[in-house]
Amino acid sequence: MGLVVQKYGGSSVADAASVKRVAQRIAETKRAGNDVVVVVSAMGDTTDELIELAEQVTPVPSGRELDMLLTAGERISMAVVAMALGNLGIEARSFTGSQAGVITDSAHGKARIIDVTPGRISQALSEGAVAIVAGFQGVSQDTKDITTLGRGGSDTTAVALAAALQAEVCEIYTDVDGVYSADPRIVPAARRLPHLAYEEMMEMAACGAKVLHLRCVEYARRFTLPIHVRSSFSHRTGTWISDNPPTPDLASGTLDEEGTEVEQPIISAVAHDRSEAKVTVVGVPDKPGEAARIFRAVAEAGTNIDMIVQNVSSVATGRADISFTLPKTDGATAVAALRKVQPAIGFDDILFDDSIGKVSLIGAGMRSHPGVSATFFDALATAGVNVEIISTSEIRISVVVRGDSVDEAVRAIHTAFDLDSDEGATVYAGTGR
Amino acid sequence: MGLVVQKYGGSSVADAASVKRVAQRIAETKRAGNDVVVVVSAMGDTTDELIELAEQVTPVPSGRELDMLLTAGERISMAVVAMALGNLGIEARSFTGSQAGVITDSAHGKARIIDVTPGRISQALSEGAVAIVAGFQGVSQDTKDITTLGRGGSDTTAVALAAALQAEVCEIYTDVDGVYSADPRIVPAARRLPHLAYEEMMEMAACGAKVLHLRCVEYARRFTLPIHVRSSFSHRTGTWISDNPPTPDLASGTLDEEGTEVEQPIISAVAHDRSEAKVTVVGVPDKPGEAARIFRAVAEAGTNIDMIVQNVSSVATGRADISFTLPKTDGATAVAALRKVQPAIGFDDILFDDSIGKVSLIGAGMRSHPGVSATFFDALATAGVNVEIISTSEIRISVVVRGDSVDEAVRAIHTAFDLDSDEGATVYAGTGR
Repeated sequence: MGLVVQKYGGSSVADAASVKRVAQRIAETKRAGNDVVVVVSAMGDTTDELIELAEQVTPVPSGRELDMLLTAGERISMAVVAMALGNLGIEARSFTGSQAGVITDSAHGKARIIDVTPGRISQALSEGAVAIVAGFQGVSQDTKDITTLGRGGSDTTAVALAAALQAEVCEIYTDVDGVYSADPRIVPAARRLPHLAYEEMMEMAACGAKVLHLRCVEYARRFTLPIHVRSSFSHRTGTWISDNPPTPDLASGTLDEEGTEVEQPIISAVAHDRSEAKVTVVGVPDKPGEAARIFRAVAEAGTNIDMIVQNVSSVATGRADISFTLPKTDGATAVAALRKVQPAIGFDDILFDDSIGKVSLIGAGMRSHPGVSATFFDALATAGVNVEIISTSEIRISVVVRGDSVDEAVRAIHTAFDLDSDEGATVYAGTGR
Repeated sequence: MGLVVQKYGGSSVADAASVKRVAQRIAETKRAGNDVVVVVSAMGDTTDELIELAEQVTPVPSGRELDMLLTAGERISMAVVAMALGNLGIEARSFTGSQAGVITDSAHGKARIIDVTPGRISQALSEGAVAIVAGFQGVSQDTKDITTLGRGGSDTTAVALAAALQAEVCEIYTDVDGVYSADPRIVPAARRLPHLAYEEMMEMAACGAKVLHLRCVEYARRFTLPIHVRSSFSHRTGTWISDNPPTPDLASGTLDEEGTEVEQPIISAVAHDRSEAKVTVVGVPDKPGEAARIFRAVAEAGTNIDMIVQNVSSVATGRADISFTLPKTDGATAVAALRKVQPAIGFDDILFDDSIGKVSLIGAGMRSHPGVSATFFDALATAGVNVEIISTSEIRISVVVRGDSVDEAVRAIHTAFDLDSDEGATVYAGTGR
């Protein structure tokens, strides 16, 4: 047996009863002979409640102080989980991000990990204790101030610690039992994926799959650390994320319930995302550099653009339309920035459309299989779904469609690529988040 | 102007509105040209809620983890106070006990401060910021684990930091406006004391006055650091605690509202305490060493004994009775310990009486004034109060009386020593805690 890092999210430690259940699970892992490091998020809604408290005091809290405040959340959960383990006769010691050696830059609220020096964790493990570590937090290398890692922070803490400690696996416990071939609320026949390559999971995260954050998968890929996404409510194998499907020696995750090896499909999953909006800049003078001026204006407003399409310029007018997608929440800022440069660039108008959705097909197999695009667009055409923007990578095809066509598009593609499970919806054991 | 350390208790920062009020007060002090360090307790009932959470998970939490858990309370309040100051345009930085350099031993839940190295606080002050420090917590010198200081912890943090930073004064803000000559709920004519010597305040704390903990006054005396106890709900001068009444140069606290200097009375105050019980060991063989065996048994059970009296031994039986007082909460443990040694020592019986009260007269003036004892016991006799145990120091007389005689005894003594205020009850502005 070796070293296992387990991460439990806020819903897994929402109250005392959940904490006790999680402690039981950690105790089992420890008693099976493993060294165990556990990363926890704040209990349930604690973080939201702390943010609300801050808002009662000031509309613009300092980043340093907001981080100091929010890190109280994990401090509570980690101490309580350690106590619950103690109650089961397992020695456990909790550590803040700072104590665990999670060294970051000084960007409060969205700090990046720049080093992990888990000396105290190794010490605790060598003394036979389980180490419980606060997720989402670190300490700034320059200022020694407490920082938080922002979105996906606790998952990233877990992966970073697992990499630094050379753990065998980083287990991410959540309230669904793995990554699915599509959202089971839309496709009841979606199936749990036993394995995904890092880049597939990264594309899925970038395309709206919420189970793992892009950042933590990137980190795991850099260190070739296997991630196992699984449910804290059941003991079944979830989804393994690694370079190659794991061998039976490495873990039980390679075999499905019947003990037969799962064949890696060509196409892995259909993802969708309703969080984006589309901006169309109408009548852009068709001169070199005009598109660059538009995107520079948007970038300087702090917005990340996702997909871009430029219409063929009209010979009559010498003008073209440029459309792009961006997070809905950045819409107002981006449009305002464009209005400012409108006189200088001389385009005609700006259209903002937040009734769109993005649907993506992902699979490492597609790079070596011809005909994927044909099947993809045939399926959409047959379902009567109109495509507004297209973007592709080696292992992904994404389209922007009307928001009310998203479900239909996901279902049509899922069926067209034979992703539907034989077992129907029964495999989905999650709570639907 | 110089350096002021202010400490605000949990009731002063109970909610967002209170935090904003406190921030206003800190901002005033800063704008008046002072360097300001603020020590805060956890907001309102936070600590009790965290203890309750721990109890839901385990009946016997590890001391290390309970300290980790409880210190989340001050982390929240200090960050919120810093944010509220930021909102008033005052730069403020919060620091945990560890960051503030509060170094302790490893006795979780009741750690002693062994060093204070406030380098980061000095740095923040030199950069013009207000430093907000978590009270009640520190970091163990040996294990680097987070510790809590136990009872009176936040006051002690404030005094320790003030001493280490050579502050001019440590202001303890509470919900009463100073230390009174008696509990105003019992003696409506009790008066606020403008000044107390350290040893007077120490005797008062030891005799039941709750406004300051003995430990923090001891610490202040060791460093000759003036303490100013005052209300966070008003701007009036409270009670100064120092070696000598402060000169008008040092602070406004020497002068009362009319601007006349307050004469230091011979006797300062009457304190009372209903938290003790009396144990009587009946029929102890009158041989050398028997009393020692009794007290050793009680001490080994972890109980602190307060007052002791031994009856004159009966010539007929060769036996004596020994009575002593101890905290009510230690009663069961002490009696059990005595039952165990009863056969070996051979005393007759143990009586436990928790219907007692202790009443004490305190004043540095009494050591040089004859007749204090006579006036004291005359007053009790006239009031018909029976005295069960007597104990004295150079600046204190304490008696144990029936619990239902405490109020009467306090009033009689207060009046006999001319402590009643001319203004009556109007001087008492606190909430009665």
